[in-house]
Amino acid sequence: MLVIMRDHASKQEVDHVVTRLHEAGAEAHLSDGEVKTIIGVIGDREVIYSLDMEGMPGVEQVIRVLKPYKLVSRDFQPEDTVVTVKGSSIGGGAIAVMAGPCSIESEEQLMRTAEAVKASGATMLRGGAYKPRTSPYAFQGMGEEGLRLLAEAGRVTGLPVVTEVLDVRDAEKVAGYADVLQVGARNMQNFMMLEELGKMQRPILLKRGLSATIEELLSAAEYILKGGNRDVILCERGIRTFETYTRNTLDLAAVAALKQLTHLPVIADPSHATGRRDLVAPMCRAALASGADGLMVEVHIDPEHARCDGPQSLTPDGFARLMSDIEPLVHLDGNRWGLPS
Amino acid sequence: MLVIMRDHASKQEVDHVVTRLHEAGAEAHLSDGEVKTIIGVIGDREVIYSLDMEGMPGVEQVIRVLKPYKLVSRDFQPEDTVVTVKGSSIGGGAIAVMAGPCSIESEEQLMRTAEAVKASGATMLRGGAYKPRTSPYAFQGMGEEGLRLLAEAGRVTGLPVVTEVLDVRDAEKVAGYADVLQVGARNMQNFMMLEELGKMQRPILLKRGLSATIEELLSAAEYILKGGNRDVILCERGIRTFETYTRNTLDLAAVAALKQLTHLPVIADPSHATGRRDLVAPMCRAALASGADGLMVEVHIDPEHARCDGPQSLTPDGFARLMSDIEPLVHLDGNRWGLPS
Amino acid sequence: MLVIMRDHASKQEVDHVVTRLHEAGAEAHLSDGEVKTIIGVIGDREVIYSLDMEGMPGVEQVIRVLKPYKLVSRDFQPEDTVVTVKGSSIGGGAIAVMAGPCSIESEEQLMRTAEAVKASGATMLRGGAYKPRTSPYAFQGMGEEGLRLLAEAGRVTGLPVVTEVLDVRDAEKVAGYADVLQVGARNMQNFMMLEELGKMQRPILLKRGLSATIEELLSAAEYILKGGNRDVILCERGIRTFETYTRNTLDLAAVAALKQLTHLPVIADPSHATGRRDLVAPMCRAALASGADGLMVEVHIDPEHARCDGPQSLTPDGFARLMSDIEPLVHLDGNRWGLPS
Amino acid sequence: MLVIMRDHASKQEVDHVVTRLHEAGAEAHLSDGEVKTIIGVIGDREVIYSLDMEGMPGVEQVIRVLKPYKLVSRDFQPEDTVVTVKGSSIGGGAIAVMAGPCSIESEEQLMRTAEAVKASGATMLRGGAYKPRTSPYAFQGMGEEGLRLLAEAGRVTGLPVVTEVLDVRDAEKVAGYADVLQVGARNMQNFMMLEELGKMQRPILLKRGLSATIEELLSAAEYILKGGNRDVILCERGIRTFETYTRNTLDLAAVAALKQLTHLPVIADPSHATGRRDLVAPMCRAALASGADGLMVEVHIDPEHARCDGPQSLTPDGFARLMSDIEPLVHLDGNRWGLPS
Repeated sequence: MLVIMRDHASKQEVDHVVTRLHEAGAEAHLSDGEVKTIIGVIGDREVIYSLDMEGMPGVEQVIRVLKPYKLVSRDFQPEDTVVTVKGSSIGGGAIAVMAGPCSIESEEQLMRTAEAVKASGATMLRGGAYKPRTSPYAFQGMGEEGLRLLAEAGRVTGLPVVTEVLDVRDAEKVAGYADVLQVGARNMQNFMMLEELGKMQRPILLKRGLSATIEELLSAAEYILKGGNRDVILCERGIRTFETYTRNTLDLAAVAALKQLTHLPVIADPSHATGRRDLVAPMCRAALASGADGLMVEVHIDPEHARCDGPQSLTPDGFARLMSDIEPLVHLDGNRWGLPS
Repeated sequence: MLVIMRDHASKQEVDHVVTRLHEAGAEAHLSDGEVKTIIGVIGDREVIYSLDMEGMPGVEQVIRVLKPYKLVSRDFQPEDTVVTVKGSSIGGGAIAVMAGPCSIESEEQLMRTAEAVKASGATMLRGGAYKPRTSPYAFQGMGEEGLRLLAEAGRVTGLPVVTEVLDVRDAEKVAGYADVLQVGARNMQNFMMLEELGKMQRPILLKRGLSATIEELLSAAEYILKGGNRDVILCERGIRTFETYTRNTLDLAAVAALKQLTHLPVIADPSHATGRRDLVAPMCRAALASGADGLMVEVHIDPEHARCDGPQSLTPDGFARLMSDIEPLVHLDGNRWGLPS
Repeated sequence: MLVIMRDHASKQEVDHVVTRLHEAGAEAHLSDGEVKTIIGVIGDREVIYSLDMEGMPGVEQVIRVLKPYKLVSRDFQPEDTVVTVKGSSIGGGAIAVMAGPCSIESEEQLMRTAEAVKASGATMLRGGAYKPRTSPYAFQGMGEEGLRLLAEAGRVTGLPVVTEVLDVRDAEKVAGYADVLQVGARNMQNFMMLEELGKMQRPILLKRGLSATIEELLSAAEYILKGGNRDVILCERGIRTFETYTRNTLDLAAVAALKQLTHLPVIADPSHATGRRDLVAPMCRAALASGADGLMVEVHIDPEHARCDGPQSLTPDGFARLMSDIEPLVHLDGNRWGLPS
Repeated sequence: MLVIMRDHASKQEVDHVVTRLHEAGAEAHLSDGEVKTIIGVIGDREVIYSLDMEGMPGVEQVIRVLKPYKLVSRDFQPEDTVVTVKGSSIGGGAIAVMAGPCSIESEEQLMRTAEAVKASGATMLRGGAYKPRTSPYAFQGMGEEGLRLLAEAGRVTGLPVVTEVLDVRDAEKVAGYADVLQVGARNMQNFMMLEELGKMQRPILLKRGLSATIEELLSAAEYILKGGNRDVILCERGIRTFETYTRNTLDLAAVAALKQLTHLPVIADPSHATGRRDLVAPMCRAALASGADGLMVEVHIDPEHARCDGPQSLTPDGFARLMSDIEPLVHLDGNRWGLPS
């Protein structure tokens, strides 16, 4: 931690800060300039993060140089985490494609989509049973019936299934049907849910919040790992910026940065990020080229009748074309499909 | 709703859209230009919001001109909602100041702060028992013991108390101690929690999410009103932008806009928005001048030992000065303190 | 400056940084932790800002704690700069209102507007002769003929006139007609223009760029002061964020922060910031309450026929109401109208 | 254009809008709902963009569906523009890599860098002679002497050279030395400069502004094409968002979108976008995968002594590795290096 004192802070103010640091069990090192004094603080992560020195007289700014997370970092675990579920893998060179409809709407819609994405090479099946919708008047998902259909589709196709936990009270129920539990962007900092999922035995797919920094995403993952669950997959799905041509702005530099900062697998979701079907393929390619371990893609047998996210959903044919389009990208750097061998 | 067709969309594509609209029970009106066709759609809000036409062939863009909310709008209820709790009011010209510590840390800290803010004229007492923290290594609040202390401080001072519900499973418990239930910025789109709070008998203080639009804030409030709870107070607490000098960017035009769009009371929280003690007073003044019905202000008897948000907390003396500083602003437009008469 | 080394940087890397600092004439102070070494650097502002240590091996981050500006700061000049032109003042408690049309469209339009705003108490007249327009197909202003009309309107009403310099090559020409030269948001970092204006004898109204930080705005002003021109007025006119309800987001905390950081006068432009006529009055009030030294307001005799910015322009009657609406705010803190006595 | 009337706007208000439209020579088509009337407007682009209907009574919102640009659009010219200079090409499947130092610092620094990037396969040489710097105390570039060195380095290596025009008054001078003229992000909406460059005979490299939308970038390019200069290359170089881990946020979906919307070549500049050397290679790969026609990369023989942008500059060795790293990406979709055959 660095404590930067205001210009010409008094000796008394500096001494006061130093005393408080010593009381808390941290070491203080002074750099004393004509205009400014800066204090280098050395100590334990938990001590550092429990100190709130910004409120002290004479303090201009406090900069924490120790990261607010530990278990998720490459420093803590240099080798890639590989998450394997029902034989499908992600991480450590294994590439996953999670495909399926935004929302589960009927048995036929789901089954036909599931079979189509399986045929084209998807490694997991996605589908929403509980949908977070801005307006209370929009379709909210099929609920548990949707979960049941999803599990059935997983059984038939042999694909592991991913679905969102929207309510912490439903976590156990969802885990009864799904192989991977998704935390949506709006719940990335629902810390109570993160803690609950940290105690569970299912891999977690954690989506980046619309205005969450890379550090906040990693800190959210830290909550889950701290609870004991080491199988976390991170997902970049676009951040909110001033640009309105796309629904959000896909931040692929975040994918590349995450691959350096953490050992956890990282995927991208170009469907939600762009909100436009015709940008999904180029962004899938770009995501893989930036180092992503996988993709999440919305596919619907009949996008124009989709009850949500039609404009960004691929048809089964479009998905088949996508899969052959990304084929050369999957094999960059010696990577391979994360399929059961 | 407006459906804007791509340049030179075919007659077939246009007809197809029109047919789908008719099937759904909506009316379609065509404007046919040389380059573009646009289709005006007239229909019921729920129908309009359940249609996802963007996925259809030839469609460039769909613009919803009916708002995604209804019960919260001024059109639905022109007169101001006034929320009254234990005799204190907010809305309809009654100005509230909710003051207290970011987190409840001890009986002494809370009691002394509560008495100080009461003495200076605060109309409600705030204090956090469950704290959402970015890092799992930071102080997470005192939990139920904090709630107990808060209720006691409310009893002693006669002030209604406000505190955050962090976990939907705790809503009933928190309601057992608190007069107003706060939904934090990170939970603004925790729709399950909004639905739960919609069924309760306590006023809700709903904070705007860090990257939530005005329309999304109103839609979130709509979830609560739709559930039957009409006592919602909105709170602008800063949005996330590129500017890092302040913690967030206080969007006071949103306060003024909300006062036009909705009948619900609107307050501002300059402490969280700016993150800087020395900007709290000017922003409190500005918020009232922009039309806010109240303020939320962090006060701590000893900010430099605060376990969270020290840098933005006022001392009791600072709060007393603030209260006299804002006095002329409170009485603009014939407004008055929302105190029991 | 602080140099933060990567975790476990080698002694060699640290020594190398220290050597480079010494060579450059700066002092280095080490804080050596188990995980991290941080180096405090003390030296001259120009030396510090010419060093680019981020490129060195083992360096994680470089933080400049000396501000990149000097002449504009309160540390350099504690007392308020007061800019006076033709007897009208701004700064040091004198409040200015610059009103007039977005663009000058005809003699009649300008004259009638000028007389109306003068009658309601405006202290300066604004009007654009050269208009920066996103589309090359939009109206670009009347050019020099507009300048001539503006000067004439200034003469008739006795009001000082403000207008934008859009092209550095026109600076002298514009200065031949106008009392205050405006740098638009898009040119805030047109450093060549700033340098040119720094050599001129006219007060400069410098608008904050749409994505400029407070520090960048102050650094842009520093360019002008460094050239010798001390009469700079800063203007907050909204920043670009994800919120689209308003045209931009008026950042009033920036106004309050600027009043602390610099001695230069600071105004707000709620017309451009909000883009909505009905938000102009509340935001004018809020700006004054936040500490602004003045306002810029668009007024048009016939907004619905305005060739630009009609939706945010007030009618002369609307402006008269605004002026009485803000009257109590002008006199806060013992301030006064910046009118010739 | 669509004019959306306020809820329950009066018949008089609607008629008034229609009359104004007819006067201006546009056609109006009404869609009349119970709550809302919307008016579809058909007419000429220039007429549409000169109308400012938002200011009219009863009007809620005006949506322009005709794009504000024409010459740059794929509708106007479906086939790719190929820019060729000294035998090097970009666009239409020809991939360019423009490499070199951020700023030209000395003959030796530039020559050695130029020879190194040429040896590794760069197709153009970049280097700044005039540097836009936030602080007036930072290094501002070598000026005309830098231009002279750049031209010399171009001659020796046979590479076309690219450099920034910072001041419209220098455009002719810079064109005397450089093959491609760059407009920096801060000048993207310096319309006077765009108009001047539209009259010149040199290809223009137009960088996206830090907070410019895709539509604004295209409109800026339209200024140049409207002046008669058809050789414009667009460059995505990162937009400003809340994320601070990277210097800016590289918006690769904008690259993919631009490739659909315009026939002009589009490149990406991962050096400026990320500000971090270790993210340059993954983002170069991702940019090509997203459809970019080229890259701009900063290379310095001695990054730690660079006078600007050291942290993001590659060494010659790093650049050589990058070039082999991107090789498979260059040849996607049948593309090829834009080298003289």
